[in-house]
Amino acid sequence: MTPQTVDPRLSINQATIKHADLATALAVTADAGVQSIGLWREPVNEVGLDVAARMLADSGLRFSSHCRGGFFTLPAGPERDAALDENRRAIEETATLAAAGADGSAAVLVLVAGGLPAGSRDLVGARERVRDALGALADDAKAAGVTLALEPLHPMYASDRAVISTLGQALDIAGDFEPGVVGAAVDTFHIWWDPQVLDQIARAGRDRRIATYQVCDWRTPLPADALLARHYMGEGVIDFASLTQAVMATGYDRDIEVELFNADIWADDPARVVARTAAAFSATVSPHLG
Amino acid sequence: MTPQTVDPRLSINQATIKHADLATALAVTADAGVQSIGLWREPVNEVGLDVAARMLADSGLRFSSHCRGGFFTLPAGPERDAALDENRRAIEETATLAAAGADGSAAVLVLVAGGLPAGSRDLVGARERVRDALGALADDAKAAGVTLALEPLHPMYASDRAVISTLGQALDIAGDFEPGVVGAAVDTFHIWWDPQVLDQIARAGRDRRIATYQVCDWRTPLPADALLARHYMGEGVIDFASLTQAVMATGYDRDIEVELFNADIWADDPARVVARTAAAFSATVSPHLG
Repeated sequence: MTPQTVDPRLSINQATIKHADLATALAVTADAGVQSIGLWREPVNEVGLDVAARMLADSGLRFSSHCRGGFFTLPAGPERDAALDENRRAIEETATLAAAGADGSAAVLVLVAGGLPAGSRDLVGARERVRDALGALADDAKAAGVTLALEPLHPMYASDRAVISTLGQALDIAGDFEPGVVGAAVDTFHIWWDPQVLDQIARAGRDRRIATYQVCDWRTPLPADALLARHYMGEGVIDFASLTQAVMATGYDRDIEVELFNADIWADDPARVVARTAAAFSATVSPHLG
Repeated sequence: MTPQTVDPRLSINQATIKHADLATALAVTADAGVQSIGLWREPVNEVGLDVAARMLADSGLRFSSHCRGGFFTLPAGPERDAALDENRRAIEETATLAAAGADGSAAVLVLVAGGLPAGSRDLVGARERVRDALGALADDAKAAGVTLALEPLHPMYASDRAVISTLGQALDIAGDFEPGVVGAAVDTFHIWWDPQVLDQIARAGRDRRIATYQVCDWRTPLPADALLARHYMGEGVIDFASLTQAVMATGYDRDIEVELFNADIWADDPARVVARTAAAFSATVSPHLG
């Protein structure tokens, strides 16, 4: 693995090297010759937003997205209000970090909708509360110049993690708002199985809704913790050619993130993980960037 | 649990009491006051089809479906031919058993499409081979008076079990064939999460494609073996009211099967499992049968 093989559009999502603190994450990413990084709120807030922004600026890396807001399926009440306030803080963080990152940074906040409230079976209602929450946050996002990227998650997470399950559904909701204010996160892991996936990617492009494109692979058997089922590209069954070509055909020109939740990868050395990620990206995604 | 509380439309799918042989399955089902049963090929063939048909007739139970055919995503070759021949045998078994069951039996063969062939990432191609396989089997099914029930499985099984992932997709494929020859299996576990589920159930009804309605519940965390994630109705998050009402609104008048793949349930006493299933059905499904 030598730096010159690193694709300039690759971004390392910080969750891929979850146990690295912000300083380490920035260092190993930049040292590997990767040009972009997606950050998470917890390690940013561990050092404080101002310090994090300065560290990011010093790294010379672009900032590709902030993870994450959302979790706003609760019914009206203090808990929902608190969740919305958290999202407003995340919007501010996103704007600050995007301004601190190198040219080409993207002010994108990824939103995971949240699951069914405890004891509830009202999936339709929970989904409507996602739409309502976006309505409550859209003005803040617009004022901050931040795009809210609603992320459809794989249907196996529909009950406890994200009631938004398909790209089509995310686009239906995003359609209530201005492009540039509400878009969608297009993550191969979550949507590769969808019989409508190519049509919905094309639609997302037409509607100017692709806020971020993220890649990782799907493989079975699933691990005991189904949240940790994400693999290096090429180690599973996802066809990155057709999905990446479909995204590129829309004119998507931002960085492409790799976000791996995987216990084995987290246990590995962060520098080695970044190098392996870059190699997997070059082998599976780069050939389709046209 | 007394017999008079058993819903007359409940059918016990034999997989719910997986470790019971055919004689035991028929006996505990009938003894519980349940009127219908769905059978599996393996225990039927263990005693032989003629003997199985006689045993079924003697039980007085209706026959609600045969499980299962399918697994025909392989490319052309001897393995695919063998799979198609297996499906033809399953069609014959279905016709024989439906004729042996009590009045109101249904000659329905449930089809699980199969996953991606080893080493393949061509999901689109695998899905087209499902359509081709139905084309190869439709005449046999029609001649035998059997309905092929294509079952969309939850997207978490798309890679290794069934490349048909939504009811809409199953209906798109079924639409190439006569109603009554190819239909769909509507199983709450597999489709509850789908934002289009109610619309697609209505469409399935208009198209006369609901070959079987099956119920069980979804709950997380998923077990280590994701195939065994099915729960008694009421123990999870599925809203049986809206789904059952949608199916009933189409005029569906057949039995309703409960099929539970669950290691704890399989380890339990079959008679107790049938009684618990009947009670769960009465509590969650019966109120919506109008």
